[in-house]
Amino acid sequence: MEDIHVSKRHPRAESIRIRERLTGHIETKVLALAGLIAHGRGEAFDYILGEETTPSAKTAITAAAATLLLAEHPVLSVNGNVAALCAEEFVELSEATGAKLEVNLFHRLPGREEAIEAVLREAGAGEVLGVDGSATARIKEIFSDRRTVDPRGIFVADVVFVPLEDGDRTEGLVRMGKKVVTVDLNPMSRTAQFADVTIVDNVVRAMPLLVSEAERLKASSGEELKRILDAYDNARVLSESMETMLKRLGKLSERGVYLEPSEG
Amino acid sequence: MEDIHVSKRHPRAESIRIRERLTGHIETKVLALAGLIAHGRGEAFDYILGEETTPSAKTAITAAAATLLLAEHPVLSVNGNVAALCAEEFVELSEATGAKLEVNLFHRLPGREEAIEAVLREAGAGEVLGVDGSATARIKEIFSDRRTVDPRGIFVADVVFVPLEDGDRTEGLVRMGKKVVTVDLNPMSRTAQFADVTIVDNVVRAMPLLVSEAERLKASSGEELKRILDAYDNARVLSESMETMLKRLGKLSERGVYLEPSEG
Repeated sequence: MEDIHVSKRHPRAESIRIRERLTGHIETKVLALAGLIAHGRGEAFDYILGEETTPSAKTAITAAAATLLLAEHPVLSVNGNVAALCAEEFVELSEATGAKLEVNLFHRLPGREEAIEAVLREAGAGEVLGVDGSATARIKEIFSDRRTVDPRGIFVADVVFVPLEDGDRTEGLVRMGKKVVTVDLNPMSRTAQFADVTIVDNVVRAMPLLVSEAERLKASSGEELKRILDAYDNARVLSESMETMLKRLGKLSERGVYLEPSEG
Repeated sequence: MEDIHVSKRHPRAESIRIRERLTGHIETKVLALAGLIAHGRGEAFDYILGEETTPSAKTAITAAAATLLLAEHPVLSVNGNVAALCAEEFVELSEATGAKLEVNLFHRLPGREEAIEAVLREAGAGEVLGVDGSATARIKEIFSDRRTVDPRGIFVADVVFVPLEDGDRTEGLVRMGKKVVTVDLNPMSRTAQFADVTIVDNVVRAMPLLVSEAERLKASSGEELKRILDAYDNARVLSESMETMLKRLGKLSERGVYLEPSEG
């Protein structure tokens, strides 16, 4: 992106750069306006979390990589925020795990699918599902008109990676019997709660780690991968994230002097 | 607004209506894109706070009304989010306290001032400062190019009401020796910390209460109003808000079953 003009020394330079990247993608149609509000919610939770990948998030990242590698038909679901922030890592994760890429939108506005597909292609993607009218299968488990998926992708997948997903839709996927892996900064969201593996982290920090974990575990046997999953406890990961947030809020509160998510 | 088409029975109908109102105001230019991200941050903090006006917020609202009524030159600062969400209440508060209305923007994009002025006029405003090139005074205490204010308004005010304000600018106003009253859902923000009176609440809930409190206290003597302020402790109000958030997060964490801020 050419719109990066924030001093590197600004204490919140990174989050300001991410904001500019997202607002720039309103014009390209990759992002819907609601995506900006969702990003703001994420920022607040990330701030409370400490803006770091926690040890339990790392545990979840390892389990996520193992789940994707063990899957028969894994699919990586790409929405606007994800395309704007980490298209390259999605392509790399697809290559490392053999998972298909599917554009899967809550707000299917004219031109959006194409814009997201273009971002993925530019990042090196080959096959992209869910575009050009290919999202023709309806998930009856999702009670809204935003439930169409690609019959070659999410519809037949056994494992779906759906970061930053809407709660209703995650619930629908779980009801269909799919294993769901997600990234969500709010451990209390329904997506975080319903998923089989929840990475409570900023998607920008988590994706490179997930890619390298998938590459590292690629050579492992099915047995080894299964052992990772047997030892994994998502409820514990969620409650550890809550504890991290509670501790940090408590510490900030005691200190009485605060930093802030810098206001736009 | 005519864009309200969410079922009243939806558990998060109110916050979805507010979102639609805000996204609708991108087109009218009232709101900058960054305003949507800021709104998302507020949503997350409101969720953690319990989406209710707390007793300590009510105490702050009373102190805010007393501060505005005691001021010699009070000014109500209006930005895009505030204009989109509660223009009517700003006009009412201006009438109840004799405070002037000033459009005060972080992002001064072409047409924005005029759009916000139009919203204020439609809500019944008479004089509107800070528009038509009248924001000619520069605040040297604010280190950015976004520091222009109206020489008849904020520049000479003794009390400034700046809800949803940027931290740098709040700090600048405080350095100029002004009394600052704010509404901010994040008790850890620099605006919340620097202000003399911080209402930690959703501006949509707080404004009608602030208007009726100003109307109720209007007949009070200066002595009575001063007594309210002598008894008021903003640091305590902030730490009570933090405690409310900590308790609620703790309770949600114990319960293990969570609701969520519904995702866009």
